[in-house]
Amino acid sequence: MSIKTIALVAKKGKGEAVELARAIRARYPGCMFLADAHLSELLGEAGGPSNEEVGRRAELVVVLGGDGTLIHAARMLAGREVPILGVNLGSLGFLTEIPQEDLFPRLDDVLHGRAVLDPRMKLRCRLLRDGKQVMEDHVLNDVVINKGALARIADHETFVDSKLVTTFKSDGVIVSTPTGSTAYALSAGGPILYPRVDAMVLAPICPHALTQRPLVVPADRTVSIILRNSPADVFLTIDGQAGLPLQDGDRVEVSRSPQRVLLVRNPRMDYFSILRSKLHWGER
Amino acid sequence: MSIKTIALVAKKGKGEAVELARAIRARYPGCMFLADAHLSELLGEAGGPSNEEVGRRAELVVVLGGDGTLIHAARMLAGREVPILGVNLGSLGFLTEIPQEDLFPRLDDVLHGRAVLDPRMKLRCRLLRDGKQVMEDHVLNDVVINKGALARIADHETFVDSKLVTTFKSDGVIVSTPTGSTAYALSAGGPILYPRVDAMVLAPICPHALTQRPLVVPADRTVSIILRNSPADVFLTIDGQAGLPLQDGDRVEVSRSPQRVLLVRNPRMDYFSILRSKLHWGER
Amino acid sequence: MSIKTIALVAKKGKGEAVELARAIRARYPGCMFLADAHLSELLGEAGGPSNEEVGRRAELVVVLGGDGTLIHAARMLAGREVPILGVNLGSLGFLTEIPQEDLFPRLDDVLHGRAVLDPRMKLRCRLLRDGKQVMEDHVLNDVVINKGALARIADHETFVDSKLVTTFKSDGVIVSTPTGSTAYALSAGGPILYPRVDAMVLAPICPHALTQRPLVVPADRTVSIILRNSPADVFLTIDGQAGLPLQDGDRVEVSRSPQRVLLVRNPRMDYFSILRSKLHWGER
Amino acid sequence: MSIKTIALVAKKGKGEAVELARAIRARYPGCMFLADAHLSELLGEAGGPSNEEVGRRAELVVVLGGDGTLIHAARMLAGREVPILGVNLGSLGFLTEIPQEDLFPRLDDVLHGRAVLDPRMKLRCRLLRDGKQVMEDHVLNDVVINKGALARIADHETFVDSKLVTTFKSDGVIVSTPTGSTAYALSAGGPILYPRVDAMVLAPICPHALTQRPLVVPADRTVSIILRNSPADVFLTIDGQAGLPLQDGDRVEVSRSPQRVLLVRNPRMDYFSILRSKLHWGER
Repeated sequence: MSIKTIALVAKKGKGEAVELARAIRARYPGCMFLADAHLSELLGEAGGPSNEEVGRRAELVVVLGGDGTLIHAARMLAGREVPILGVNLGSLGFLTEIPQEDLFPRLDDVLHGRAVLDPRMKLRCRLLRDGKQVMEDHVLNDVVINKGALARIADHETFVDSKLVTTFKSDGVIVSTPTGSTAYALSAGGPILYPRVDAMVLAPICPHALTQRPLVVPADRTVSIILRNSPADVFLTIDGQAGLPLQDGDRVEVSRSPQRVLLVRNPRMDYFSILRSKLHWGER
Repeated sequence: MSIKTIALVAKKGKGEAVELARAIRARYPGCMFLADAHLSELLGEAGGPSNEEVGRRAELVVVLGGDGTLIHAARMLAGREVPILGVNLGSLGFLTEIPQEDLFPRLDDVLHGRAVLDPRMKLRCRLLRDGKQVMEDHVLNDVVINKGALARIADHETFVDSKLVTTFKSDGVIVSTPTGSTAYALSAGGPILYPRVDAMVLAPICPHALTQRPLVVPADRTVSIILRNSPADVFLTIDGQAGLPLQDGDRVEVSRSPQRVLLVRNPRMDYFSILRSKLHWGER
Repeated sequence: MSIKTIALVAKKGKGEAVELARAIRARYPGCMFLADAHLSELLGEAGGPSNEEVGRRAELVVVLGGDGTLIHAARMLAGREVPILGVNLGSLGFLTEIPQEDLFPRLDDVLHGRAVLDPRMKLRCRLLRDGKQVMEDHVLNDVVINKGALARIADHETFVDSKLVTTFKSDGVIVSTPTGSTAYALSAGGPILYPRVDAMVLAPICPHALTQRPLVVPADRTVSIILRNSPADVFLTIDGQAGLPLQDGDRVEVSRSPQRVLLVRNPRMDYFSILRSKLHWGER
Repeated sequence: MSIKTIALVAKKGKGEAVELARAIRARYPGCMFLADAHLSELLGEAGGPSNEEVGRRAELVVVLGGDGTLIHAARMLAGREVPILGVNLGSLGFLTEIPQEDLFPRLDDVLHGRAVLDPRMKLRCRLLRDGKQVMEDHVLNDVVINKGALARIADHETFVDSKLVTTFKSDGVIVSTPTGSTAYALSAGGPILYPRVDAMVLAPICPHALTQRPLVVPADRTVSIILRNSPADVFLTIDGQAGLPLQDGDRVEVSRSPQRVLLVRNPRMDYFSILRSKLHWGER
């Protein structure tokens, strides 16, 4: 398949993305370019396609921004397995690993079918209320249940398949993919999962019981969390981007998604060189 | 001084407190008893004094409940140094260390001037907005700044006196007394401070930077936290009981309070035996 | 296959194992029993088979002791996939989950082919010196490299397959199976891996760099650790039972073993109920 | 008092220290210089005073090296309160905070009585065997009890004054000063103590019980650790420099030392700016 339609997605407030977007369009005159709503605005090009349409038509997505922008772009694709090339405009990202100066060599690779693609697992998250599914979504990083600032801590009755794990009394619970293990879950004390590990991290946030440590669960299991004794103010957050108020008795189910995200790799980096750089390994 | 006026404070929803309150009143006919608003209701005695008046007149406070109830009672005293005798109706508390069966021996001790009192440090918390103080309060456990469930993380520019410590990018920041070091700060990864340590714990909540570890700062210093790049949804919580919305640029100052809380000790326990029991030391 | 030859393995210094061993032998007169060297001595039966022979001939192993005894028994089997029934003589173990009163019902189950067996992954550990393999062994819990009490910290240059992870400057490094994730690796800050996760934990011990957090690596990869700038006093420990001095430049390679350990399950327990009990979940 | 006798102490293997030592001697012709044994050798000047004599006569110590060298120099002083100026030859140290280019301005300050001195608490460590003191020493960083690589874990029965804290089942126990809180204790999960906190950190190393968290104890208390069920291979290490084999039943007592260490401050740095730099705060 030869790629003809390229989506360009830019980080909010990143003016330098405009210039870069123009340079990309100039260099590949044979391609059709679609800008996301935000970039269209930056480019002064009103009347373009909606983000939904961009996500539906793109055969390649070029992200100009950071990890948050890439996650936003992955959500626009709504599960379509299309390569995403993440260019970091600021500092190296865990996901946006292509520096600006490597943009064109990597784009050439993709367009000539030479790129190395790194498929990343996603998780499916379903919200069940009174036995009925009221939401379903798919995440690249994490599903987070947490409480408002003033709420008392809730009980998170947690199961793997039908087996009770425990009831976490905590500020919240994170279920993360291997990709998300270096995001919020890491700040909550979780381990780093190599992307190829077929598992998810289940990590309580500031648990009352100090022995409730992060768990790693096979991705073919279903983690369910039922909210008990819940204060009014508990929310479900999906990849840090969408929030939903939860009710007492709500059940959140998380398991491996059939969808994957295809990242274009930087051949000069590998997963561990990114970790070393981002986490200052080699230094105290 | 002989104690004549005894306040009784009960945990919400603890019916057994009623019986206990009646037994206490029966046993000490020479004393005047004041019930807090909640207990008055349980006792079916309307028209009693307000909590403020109870706090102003009490020469001894007997708490029937748990640690939360004791903190509530300490707040009623508004800084008056009056002994607090904490009876745990359920399981042993960090603060409510007198079991029900020891209530009368301990009360006798207090009334005969034989009780051992354990003074606990409090922290003064001031909120400054546009250079003006808009709130001042005193805490036995902790001052917590944290964000709402859906808010992105804020920047907490933190100083000790006039020296910049760092800017914590985190879900929030806890400043705790030694007493509070076994409460929320412990769940956030903080150390346990022996009550006599003249210092406070400064602990970020889920910090983005893994090297930002809890700090222990002398109690005669002032810890200041200025909120920067703050989302709308950040709050200040005082001893887990009162919450206040914060604004970008708000400055929270914490230092040792002149007030102390006087706990009546259980002579059969010491601080470490409580820790061993509460934290299951000796067991994995 | 009907089981005829049963090995009995007892914990050192557990006198009650003798009585239990006699009761087992009395109940199954049709079976042949082999006692390990230690139990033979306790039973006053000299001249029995060596531990090696016991391991070679057993069709079922009954362990009377704790987790350490079960690991010892698994080592006696030298990789033969024979069911192991772990009876805890003291408190519940992570591996010895059958209480004494359930011993006969479970033994009956095994002998009638009704037992549920729980296969546990092992790791193969190879030690390479000057390019030559000088040791190979298989572990149920963990491979530990650590330094002597007086040695300065060593450099552990660590790879996953051919990719450099980092050089851990630390007291040592643990590579653990999912089974071993609740043993030493947990004390070193590692996560809990559900036994079915096909991965290993790579955890530095007291790392100098605070951002060097435990990693989870797929079990089909090879983790290699090369010792650099090593003090004289560094050792390799295999399942906590065998130690070997290491030399500067030594390479320790760990990957999934073809061997597995077959645990006889207690149908009244599951993995999480054991965790809840051992780690006091539900309590602070 | 005007300083006339200056000790120069260099890090092993740091050739650049020689040139620097010569430059210092050339610049202050009116002073008498004493080199430690190692630097004397580097300078090719045999027959100089012993380290003991250097420590006894010095009115100022200039350290050319890193934190380890400064701790070594502090030990040479054997408790005499003499200013120590720490020049880092490599990267910034927690203690050696003067960069090479600031050496002469800071030396001038000290010699003209203008230097800011930062007094640091030391801890006294006593080893008692069969009721008799067999060792006493004073540390700037920490007292460490830990086991050899192959030893099973020991029981560390721990007291504050006469009160039992708990029995740590762990690889070892660290008692650190505020200064030492950023050294080994930090790697073991301890908090950072601002140098002016009048307390010590008591931190178990890889404790079996996950709820056994680091404690902070007032410096005017005595922490005692009695070794129980000890394997042969347990050692006491003093400031990382001297090791001593321990025996079952040995009692290690730690309390505030009357001695202090006087560090010459870099007026361009403060404690937190050093932390920010060493711990990469402001970065993930």
